[in-house]
Amino acid sequence: MKLSDVGERALIKIARDVCKQGGGVRVGIGDDAAVIEVGGKYIVATTDMLVAGSHFPPGTTPKQMGKKAVVVNLSDLAAMGAEPLGLIFSVALPRRLDVKFVRQLVQGMDETARKYGTYVVGGDLDESDEITIVGAAFGTTHKRKLLKRSGAKEGDLVTVTGTFGAASAGLKLLQKKLPAKGYQTLVDTILEPSARLKEGNLLARSGAVTSAIDVTDGLAANLWQLAEESRVKITVDRGKIPAHPLAKKFAVQHDFDVDDFVLFGGEDFELLFTVTPKDWRKVQHALERVGTTPTVIGRVSGGKGVFIRDKEKIRMLPNRGYEHFR
Amino acid sequence: MKLSDVGERALIKIARDVCKQGGGVRVGIGDDAAVIEVGGKYIVATTDMLVAGSHFPPGTTPKQMGKKAVVVNLSDLAAMGAEPLGLIFSVALPRRLDVKFVRQLVQGMDETARKYGTYVVGGDLDESDEITIVGAAFGTTHKRKLLKRSGAKEGDLVTVTGTFGAASAGLKLLQKKLPAKGYQTLVDTILEPSARLKEGNLLARSGAVTSAIDVTDGLAANLWQLAEESRVKITVDRGKIPAHPLAKKFAVQHDFDVDDFVLFGGEDFELLFTVTPKDWRKVQHALERVGTTPTVIGRVSGGKGVFIRDKEKIRMLPNRGYEHFR
Repeated sequence: MKLSDVGERALIKIARDVCKQGGGVRVGIGDDAAVIEVGGKYIVATTDMLVAGSHFPPGTTPKQMGKKAVVVNLSDLAAMGAEPLGLIFSVALPRRLDVKFVRQLVQGMDETARKYGTYVVGGDLDESDEITIVGAAFGTTHKRKLLKRSGAKEGDLVTVTGTFGAASAGLKLLQKKLPAKGYQTLVDTILEPSARLKEGNLLARSGAVTSAIDVTDGLAANLWQLAEESRVKITVDRGKIPAHPLAKKFAVQHDFDVDDFVLFGGEDFELLFTVTPKDWRKVQHALERVGTTPTVIGRVSGGKGVFIRDKEKIRMLPNRGYEHFR
Repeated sequence: MKLSDVGERALIKIARDVCKQGGGVRVGIGDDAAVIEVGGKYIVATTDMLVAGSHFPPGTTPKQMGKKAVVVNLSDLAAMGAEPLGLIFSVALPRRLDVKFVRQLVQGMDETARKYGTYVVGGDLDESDEITIVGAAFGTTHKRKLLKRSGAKEGDLVTVTGTFGAASAGLKLLQKKLPAKGYQTLVDTILEPSARLKEGNLLARSGAVTSAIDVTDGLAANLWQLAEESRVKITVDRGKIPAHPLAKKFAVQHDFDVDDFVLFGGEDFELLFTVTPKDWRKVQHALERVGTTPTVIGRVSGGKGVFIRDKEKIRMLPNRGYEHFR
């Protein structure tokens, strides 16, 4: 059987089955980042790979590549509630590229890392036909403040930061070479995403969050991952999911299905998390104080699967999103 | 100017110039690994990338790829004297590969990590035309026991573990499709290298080592890096450099220059380090107790550059070795 026949998640399951975990490992393969305990401290580590062909839309500048490589890794730390210690990068580039490319790429990395209060501290450089940028971010968190994908409990509220669909609508615009006039925000969102690092830290410190994940594969796919890791059922309300207004407008104008952006698009880099109803106001206010609006989109209950209520009808939400090897 | 015109080291220099370092960064870009201080602890992190075209000789099995990906990263931790906490991997694979490939690759990673007392704790999976395996290893060390490339002092002995040339002779054998009979050890060394992790820890704990680097680019290139980072002159004795006996025999039989294996070959994964003369015996005995023979190959003096004494003639050692973008 070929990799393309089984899909990325089946392959991650293989890695999870094969790799034994021991020593100080507190969170191993399968969450947003790994967590190791050493001398009472929790060290959080994650890696994310960007391959030009599938991750950088046409027209992405070297600087934007560097920025994005930082953001995707910090977003994983955000989802664990960790504070970053540093970033390292392995970069493979075609030998015909100009030296300027490297300078701009690294400038994008450096500026973005510092914007989030951290640094690029090391790396490796190699030759390859396809531009490939692999980052690893590491950070710390406190044991009691660790956000995991498992932990959602019956009765919890299902909550998200920000809005959905802008990045994947922007990607569609670039891929189809549609006019960007009026839609520059969508293009900016796919080319220069942000990580919810500050928000992740606030959520961790609140002590009120029972589970969390960052939305990179699409809201539907990440809801499924949260439900599966927490062994619960999640029901969301279609009317409450905050779609980016421009993504909606773009979908209507060009006759795309808005759900393909909002539910199945990916690269939103928002946080999806669960919180007990009694703590909801506290969490809401903490996020609003830093200018981020959280929205309750659903509820956790006993059972399994992810369901969506749309105009009083409830159906199972398809478990699909951005996946490699398709 | 193209990347191929300036070479890998010039590009690393660009990254070093661009990336500001701050916060808890104790060792940034340019050493074997980065070091960040957090709450009195030193966290060490490194990343190494293996691209099939340039790192895996024809015939490398998926399991051997996984093993090597672990070893190259642990070798960097060894050179810092760090103890590993965990490994994470980003892997890009062609979609036409069989699922078995992934299982065997991950088995190689898992077995090798555990052999060195650590674990594979996370990763990312992607699609690419060329097999690309990027590892990141992280570990801890104590402030006073950190081995850096800078620190060699006038009068120090220049010392190595093990022997040189076996890996690059093995690579030549595979590349030229020469008969492996009698030379299987050379082939094994390039396909299944070892990391001097135990030795690096011993050296760090001895408190007697003034600088260290792992030999991956070739002994000559790594001697130059040590001399440049420590701002000293190094003079080595050709007659004292321990060549692997089979590498020598192979060179003679097939009319290769043995120096191309021993001095300029790379992938030896031995440790090159400096030690004060008064501490030499202590270090020697500590290593011998774990079955590793260290050899004094030269001396540190004031000045700069790397020189080699060969039959009473002293010449500058060419600063060349394995480099990408050539």
